[in-house]
Amino acid sequence: MDIATLLGLISGAIVLSTLILMGGDFRMFYDIHAVIIIFGGSFAATLIRFPMSAMIHGLPLGAKLAFQLSSLSARDLVDELARIAEVARKQGPVGLEKVETSEPFLAKGIRYVADGYDLEFIRDNLERDRDNFLLHLNEGSKIYRAIGDCAPAFGMIGTLLGMVQMFSNMSDPSKLGPFMAVALLATLYGALVANLICLPIADKLHGRLIDEETNRTLIIDGILMIRDSKSPTLVREMLLAYLPEKHRHEEGELVPA
Amino acid sequence: MDIATLLGLISGAIVLSTLILMGGDFRMFYDIHAVIIIFGGSFAATLIRFPMSAMIHGLPLGAKLAFQLSSLSARDLVDELARIAEVARKQGPVGLEKVETSEPFLAKGIRYVADGYDLEFIRDNLERDRDNFLLHLNEGSKIYRAIGDCAPAFGMIGTLLGMVQMFSNMSDPSKLGPFMAVALLATLYGALVANLICLPIADKLHGRLIDEETNRTLIIDGILMIRDSKSPTLVREMLLAYLPEKHRHEEGELVPA
Amino acid sequence: MDIATLLGLISGAIVLSTLILMGGDFRMFYDIHAVIIIFGGSFAATLIRFPMSAMIHGLPLGAKLAFQLSSLSARDLVDELARIAEVARKQGPVGLEKVETSEPFLAKGIRYVADGYDLEFIRDNLERDRDNFLLHLNEGSKIYRAIGDCAPAFGMIGTLLGMVQMFSNMSDPSKLGPFMAVALLATLYGALVANLICLPIADKLHGRLIDEETNRTLIIDGILMIRDSKSPTLVREMLLAYLPEKHRHEEGELVPA
Amino acid sequence: MDIATLLGLISGAIVLSTLILMGGDFRMFYDIHAVIIIFGGSFAATLIRFPMSAMIHGLPLGAKLAFQLSSLSARDLVDELARIAEVARKQGPVGLEKVETSEPFLAKGIRYVADGYDLEFIRDNLERDRDNFLLHLNEGSKIYRAIGDCAPAFGMIGTLLGMVQMFSNMSDPSKLGPFMAVALLATLYGALVANLICLPIADKLHGRLIDEETNRTLIIDGILMIRDSKSPTLVREMLLAYLPEKHRHEEGELVPA
Amino acid sequence: MDIATLLGLISGAIVLSTLILMGGDFRMFYDIHAVIIIFGGSFAATLIRFPMSAMIHGLPLGAKLAFQLSSLSARDLVDELARIAEVARKQGPVGLEKVETSEPFLAKGIRYVADGYDLEFIRDNLERDRDNFLLHLNEGSKIYRAIGDCAPAFGMIGTLLGMVQMFSNMSDPSKLGPFMAVALLATLYGALVANLICLPIADKLHGRLIDEETNRTLIIDGILMIRDSKSPTLVREMLLAYLPEKHRHEEGELVPA
Repeated sequence: MDIATLLGLISGAIVLSTLILMGGDFRMFYDIHAVIIIFGGSFAATLIRFPMSAMIHGLPLGAKLAFQLSSLSARDLVDELARIAEVARKQGPVGLEKVETSEPFLAKGIRYVADGYDLEFIRDNLERDRDNFLLHLNEGSKIYRAIGDCAPAFGMIGTLLGMVQMFSNMSDPSKLGPFMAVALLATLYGALVANLICLPIADKLHGRLIDEETNRTLIIDGILMIRDSKSPTLVREMLLAYLPEKHRHEEGELVPA
Repeated sequence: MDIATLLGLISGAIVLSTLILMGGDFRMFYDIHAVIIIFGGSFAATLIRFPMSAMIHGLPLGAKLAFQLSSLSARDLVDELARIAEVARKQGPVGLEKVETSEPFLAKGIRYVADGYDLEFIRDNLERDRDNFLLHLNEGSKIYRAIGDCAPAFGMIGTLLGMVQMFSNMSDPSKLGPFMAVALLATLYGALVANLICLPIADKLHGRLIDEETNRTLIIDGILMIRDSKSPTLVREMLLAYLPEKHRHEEGELVPA
Repeated sequence: MDIATLLGLISGAIVLSTLILMGGDFRMFYDIHAVIIIFGGSFAATLIRFPMSAMIHGLPLGAKLAFQLSSLSARDLVDELARIAEVARKQGPVGLEKVETSEPFLAKGIRYVADGYDLEFIRDNLERDRDNFLLHLNEGSKIYRAIGDCAPAFGMIGTLLGMVQMFSNMSDPSKLGPFMAVALLATLYGALVANLICLPIADKLHGRLIDEETNRTLIIDGILMIRDSKSPTLVREMLLAYLPEKHRHEEGELVPA
Repeated sequence: MDIATLLGLISGAIVLSTLILMGGDFRMFYDIHAVIIIFGGSFAATLIRFPMSAMIHGLPLGAKLAFQLSSLSARDLVDELARIAEVARKQGPVGLEKVETSEPFLAKGIRYVADGYDLEFIRDNLERDRDNFLLHLNEGSKIYRAIGDCAPAFGMIGTLLGMVQMFSNMSDPSKLGPFMAVALLATLYGALVANLICLPIADKLHGRLIDEETNRTLIIDGILMIRDSKSPTLVREMLLAYLPEKHRHEEGELVPA
Repeated sequence: MDIATLLGLISGAIVLSTLILMGGDFRMFYDIHAVIIIFGGSFAATLIRFPMSAMIHGLPLGAKLAFQLSSLSARDLVDELARIAEVARKQGPVGLEKVETSEPFLAKGIRYVADGYDLEFIRDNLERDRDNFLLHLNEGSKIYRAIGDCAPAFGMIGTLLGMVQMFSNMSDPSKLGPFMAVALLATLYGALVANLICLPIADKLHGRLIDEETNRTLIIDGILMIRDSKSPTLVREMLLAYLPEKHRHEEGELVPA
């Protein structure tokens, strides 16, 4: 569970609710026209922008992953893989059946080794899995960014629609206020959808993408070395050497800081 | 048929119609001045921006391809090419005459092989075809993006034109409303043309460009190997090796997901 | 003659004239203050931005080239050069004196060969010519882009100047209208200068730059091979091999399409 | 102490106070709604945007480092390291215990050498320290930039919230003024937080990051050479050769200029 | 003297004066609040953004160089260096004492050679000089760009400050005009400082940086070859070969054009 995403959404909701309740009630800030143009318009533009398959896979995956914490840091992962290599060394593939891990992708790799599949099959399957996952994660990040980029424009479109109707029907200027309030709601919704939800989620997914690429490649390399019965020391050393510099000491920092 | 583009345009139209009908009628949102400045202005600027030949080829090709689904994924294409290599193996070039395929570019390549043209001629013709196609697709994507970038500016120009006329003739402030409504229509049209139509289509065409480049290069490589009577297994393996990593497992993902 | 640029400017003028005449007359849209701030301000900022020599060479060259069609496509050029190599083969350098060509830079190269200058002299002179030409074309493209980027800002400055005067002198709100109309004209002029003229011309010049770089380098290489009495077939093959892929089939496409 | 940052903040505060006191008093510019939306909204969006650990480490580190002067320039550092190598040469590791330095990272390295740790241990520890430090500094710079990018948007959101309430409740247009003033405060706060505080700090941290990367790498290389008992002359020459060109003469310039 | 910069600033001043005098007088456009926020705010933000030393060196150097013409083009410089090599050839180092040149950096190099310093010393000193100069020129360009980027934001902040005060004190709407005029002055000042002064100067300094890097490197290479008693022909040929292509024919173009 990535607590930051949830905390961020909750505190955003609290901030908005507080401000709204301080100056009136929620009904003043609800307008069906604004909801239709922001969500309908952004949905339509996003449909045109991406192929159907990207929408089907990327959107829900992104929503799920934004709230999911990367279970292990790259450095923890190397330790975990060295531990598993230790088990495989001492007890053979059979011993791996009892190994437990919190990372599902790693668990899948361990099961393949325990079941005695050959190297080629394991590599092919895990790489295909990793590539699909990263492809959809990337699509998810791009879709949220695209929505965050066009929502303010649809907010402006909604406000313009409202103002055109308001000015066209205007006979009594004193009734201009409430119409203006409703027209501005579309701009408000667009800015909120973009700046409080979609753009931050797109940024978080982009960060996730970079982490997952490192981690899943690490897992594949580690699993293949374990399948090859490499010694735990060798597994740890080679995986550490693969780590990009900035990941190499990432975990260590959390201890002394 | 790329259903997403069509669905997107239809849902965009529904969203707009709903909003317009909820608050008035269509006539309130039609203004000939706004139509002239948005379409005339964007057309004039685009004419200056691009050479004539890019306009003639890129614009209609883009409009067509935005609605056309890439018939096969890269991975399906490799399977298709291996199947065709199988046929060529067993029945010789003559057998290819009866092979059917949904991809016109592939069909053209097969016909060349069936007709017994030599390798050099086939490569030259297919590569020239591919390059022309990609060139025009790229021009199309750029033209739609250029229109999407300048339409909001012409919307603002239209609104300014309307406001200058309105303020110049202003004697009775109470009649300011309907004039203002009309002036705002140009900004509204510009924002809609850009955000609901042109920019999403430019993005879709850009995505198509990347896919088509991979697919058509794959087809050319495959056809040349079939012309060379390579075995189906070799065709499949070599083409898979050519695939960029993200395409290699693209199709597979659609099955289990 | 690049018809697209001219057509674009003419249709832009028609669009504006139509809109202006539909709602009033030209005098309503002319204001000497707006003319001074847009042209004076952009001119002053551009003078500071670039060295004097870039202004003197780049600005008129850009204006000229935006309307001039690249006489030959890269592929036509290769055919032309092969044809000239044929002539030089059969009739010797003397025969080149009667060769006619629509491209002045090519004509200059042919004259050098016909006059029997040595290889070193020809290469030096043509490369110096090409580099000067590309340098000024690049300066021209940058200057038009710089004007297009700052014109809207000077439009805003003009409108602010007008509004400050208007608000300062304001005693009778009913006379606010015509002053406002005049103030808005500066913003209108800035948006038109940028979006209808300068930015599209900068884009066209940038496209020209890329084409001319390929063409003039092709011509130099071809002329040097002709001076060296290479065979026409060799000239054609080597020049085609130099062409970047996207240019290689450019001309072919125009025939069947 | 980086005097520039402090002077900048103080002069910014003086400028604002002067302007506010010239036209009224501070109470006129304080509004709890605007404070809540700017700080609450930016905080919520930043929480969603970054992982929790980046927030915990990067934000305070950034705040601290923006005010801290890089104690030594790269060139001073080379001189310092050569001086320490001199001491180590003459008095052995024991002599290092008495060496004093203003740079804590360098002091740590000297202590390791004085305590006789082996090369591998020293390199590992110092590199891990440097990488953690740079990672958090980079996170800090990115977080301040993200806040600076979204604060104006939340300012606009706050103003829209206020205007919706104002227009909804509007019965007496003459009371519109004070409400409008309050609504504009959110935009004002957002612009100040972004342009006077967050974006400049993000830029300063980015500059720090580049300097610290050079300096800490220099220190590690120097300490390892001292551990290896290299001669002071060699230490100085090799470190100068490592320096990127622009740093090589940085210190020298401060003397004659 | 770079006439373009001076002409640009003068014509900008004339344009503004003309517009102001056509519609009123200068006092209408002077407001102490706007001066304080634009200059104070931009100064404060720039202090936070850059280290103190960059401000002290970069700002005045930039101001000076924007008005100073690069005394010689790269091609002239090669001729000058060949001429000096000729003198050194014929009369020995002593003859160099009488050589005159308009470029101070070149003069310094000649003096070093005439005084008989060794190669290493000359290279070290000239490179250190060049690097310091380029470093400060780069800082100057960045500082002017940073001011140009934040001045419009401080203009908006000034206008918001003014509008908040205006709306808070508003009792008589008929007095709103003059207050509004004053509030708009800050936006006007910000736009002028950015678009007429700082951004164009930053662009000119960036152009200077590229030229000076080429020229000073050329001078150092030439001086070292002269110190080595290379022949004038060799000096010219080797320096021409070092020139990036676009500089090689720069001077030539000015003659025939």
